[in-house]
Amino acid sequence: MALQQQQSQQQEHIERITLAHGSGGIAMRELVEKEIVAAFSNLHLAPLEDQARLDLNVLTQLGDRLAMTTDSFVVDPLEFPGGDIGSLAVNGTVNDLAMSGAKPLYLTCGLIIEEGLPLDTLRRILASMKKAADEAGIAIVSGDTKVVHKGAADKLFINTAGVGVIPQGTDFRVSQAQPGDVVIVNGWVGDHGATVMASRGDLGLEARVQSDCRSLYKEVCTLMEANEVHCLRDATRGGIATVLNEFAESSGVRIILDQSAIPVRDEVRGVCELLGLDPLYLANEGKFLAIVPDNHAEQAVEALRKLPGAERSAIIGRVAPLTDIRPRAGVSMRTSFGSERMIDMLTGDQLPRIC
Amino acid sequence: MALQQQQSQQQEHIERITLAHGSGGIAMRELVEKEIVAAFSNLHLAPLEDQARLDLNVLTQLGDRLAMTTDSFVVDPLEFPGGDIGSLAVNGTVNDLAMSGAKPLYLTCGLIIEEGLPLDTLRRILASMKKAADEAGIAIVSGDTKVVHKGAADKLFINTAGVGVIPQGTDFRVSQAQPGDVVIVNGWVGDHGATVMASRGDLGLEARVQSDCRSLYKEVCTLMEANEVHCLRDATRGGIATVLNEFAESSGVRIILDQSAIPVRDEVRGVCELLGLDPLYLANEGKFLAIVPDNHAEQAVEALRKLPGAERSAIIGRVAPLTDIRPRAGVSMRTSFGSERMIDMLTGDQLPRIC
Repeated sequence: MALQQQQSQQQEHIERITLAHGSGGIAMRELVEKEIVAAFSNLHLAPLEDQARLDLNVLTQLGDRLAMTTDSFVVDPLEFPGGDIGSLAVNGTVNDLAMSGAKPLYLTCGLIIEEGLPLDTLRRILASMKKAADEAGIAIVSGDTKVVHKGAADKLFINTAGVGVIPQGTDFRVSQAQPGDVVIVNGWVGDHGATVMASRGDLGLEARVQSDCRSLYKEVCTLMEANEVHCLRDATRGGIATVLNEFAESSGVRIILDQSAIPVRDEVRGVCELLGLDPLYLANEGKFLAIVPDNHAEQAVEALRKLPGAERSAIIGRVAPLTDIRPRAGVSMRTSFGSERMIDMLTGDQLPRIC
Repeated sequence: MALQQQQSQQQEHIERITLAHGSGGIAMRELVEKEIVAAFSNLHLAPLEDQARLDLNVLTQLGDRLAMTTDSFVVDPLEFPGGDIGSLAVNGTVNDLAMSGAKPLYLTCGLIIEEGLPLDTLRRILASMKKAADEAGIAIVSGDTKVVHKGAADKLFINTAGVGVIPQGTDFRVSQAQPGDVVIVNGWVGDHGATVMASRGDLGLEARVQSDCRSLYKEVCTLMEANEVHCLRDATRGGIATVLNEFAESSGVRIILDQSAIPVRDEVRGVCELLGLDPLYLANEGKFLAIVPDNHAEQAVEALRKLPGAERSAIIGRVAPLTDIRPRAGVSMRTSFGSERMIDMLTGDQLPRIC
C-alpha cells in the first residue's frame, strides 16, 4: 500500500500539457517562451512577433529560386530507435527541400498537442528537433502551438514547412529519366518502416534495426558534384517502389531493377517476412533515389560511400526505352533466379502512421 | 423498414476518407491529384514534385525581407456561420504575414484527416480554402496529406505556412508603442469566438452572429497609406485584451481603453453573458489592433471605414507613460460609469479549439 501511494503521488507530480497551454493566454506564453523558444534558440526567432523576418539578400546570393514545402508528422509511436517525431519532422522537410537541389534554410514548426502529454516527452522531442535542425544547418524561425482535449488527437502531431534556395541551373524533375541512365540508391532500404513497425508494442517484435532518419543535403551536394542528376527524390511513404514508378510514368520509360543489388538488411527482411511486407514499399527517412547518366555513375557511388550513413550506396537498376514488346512505362525487377516481375504502385494501406 | 433500408443504403454510398488515402500509394495519388491539386489549381503548384519552386526575382521586386509564419487549425466544429476550418487556415496565415506589412504570396497546406471523414466535407473545405486564397491574392503552392485511424484525430486538422515580402522601411514591432499614440481596431470585436461557441451544438445556442474570418491585407495597406504604424497585430486567440497587454508590456507603457468606444455587437454580448465570457478575450479572425501616432489617426479610421467589413473601425484607447503613481506596464479600461479596471492577460483556458 505504501509503495502504491508513493507511486500514485509520483504520477501526480508528472507535469502535463493542459488546455490552458493552448489558450492564447499566460500559460501558453510561458510554454512558448520557456520551452519552445528556449529549445529552438536561434538569431531569426522573434518570439514576440507572429512572423519571422528574413533578409532576402541572403537568399539571392545562393540561387535564383525559392523552394517551399511542407509535411505533417503523425508517427506512432512518438519515439523509436534512431529517431522520434521531432527528428523526423525536421529531416523530412529538410529532405524535401534538398531533393530539388536547394540549400535548406528556414523551417516553421506547428505543434498539435493532446491534453495530458507529459511535458518531459515534449521537451525530449523539442531537443531532438533542435539537434536535427543544427545538423541540417536549418533554423526553426516561427511556430504555432495548439492543444486539443484528450481523445481529439493522439499525443502529438507536428507540421513543418521549410524554404531553401535552388542554385541557378539546377533543375531536377521526375520526368527527366532517359534510356541509358542508371538508378542510384544511397544505402540500406526499408530501415525506417521496419523500425517503426517493430516498435509498436502490439506486434511483439523486438527492434534490432533503427530508423535511417537524417538530413540528406550533404549527400545531394556530393552527388551533384560527382554527376549530372536527372531525377532525385527521397523514398518515404510508399518506399522505393513508389518513387521509381513515379519516375518511370512521368518520364515514359521502363526502370529495370537488379534484385541482388538492392541493399536490404537481414533484420529488415525478417520484419517483412513476419508481417507479410515487401521492403521495396517500406518507408525510408534517409534514402533517396537518383536517376543519373551512366558515364560518371560509378564515381558518384564511390563518393557517396565515403559519407557516414551512405556506405552501402549502390547502382540498383537502369532505365530502358519503351519498345513494341514492352510498351508500358513502369518498374520491373530481375530476381536472383533470373525471372522478371513487375513492381507496381502500392494499392492498399500498408503502413499507416509510419511518418 | 423499407425506408430504413433505403437510408442505410444511402449511408453506405457516402464516400469517405480511408487509411489508404494516406499510404503513399495509388489511392493517395488519386486523392491528391483529383481533389486537392484540382481544387487549389494555380501556376506554381507542381503536383508531381515534392516542393514548389518560386522565382526569387518576383520576391526581391517587392521588398527586402521574407516574412515566414505558420499556424495549425483545430477548430470545432469544422464549419460555422461565416467560415470554416479552410477559410480560417488560409486567412489566419495570410493575416500573420500581413501584420508585418508583408504582401502575402505563397502558402503550404498540411492536412491531417481522421479516417471516415466524408469526402464531400473535405471537398467543401478545399473549395473554401481556394476561395479564401484567391480573395487574399495568395497561391497554395505545396501540400501534404496524412490520414490517421478513427479516434486518433478529430475529423480534420489543417496547418498552413506562408511567406510574403516586407517592403523596405516597413518595420512594425510590438515594442514600439509610445505615450501619446492611439489604439485603432478595425471593427466589431469578438464575432469569431462568439460564433464558434454558439455553433457548438451542446450549448443549445442559436448563432445569430457570424465569424469575421477574412484577409486583412487590404486594410493594412490602407492603414499604412494613411498613417505611420508603430505596432500591428491581429487579435486571434486571447482576443484584443491579450494583444494589447503584449504591446503594453513589450513597449513599457500603459494602454487605457475607453469602454464606450469598443465596438461589440449586442448578439456577441448576449453569448458572453450566457457563457460568462468577456468580449475582450474572445478570438477574432478579421480584426487587428494598431498603435499609431495621434496626428493622422482620425484620417486612418475614416479610410478604413470605407472598406467592406471595416465600417466600424474606431479609436478605442490611448497610450500613456508609466508614472510614479502608475508604475506598471499594462492595460486598463475606463468604464461607462467612469471607473477604471485592469484588463489582465488571460490566465485559464477560456475557449479551446476556437481556431
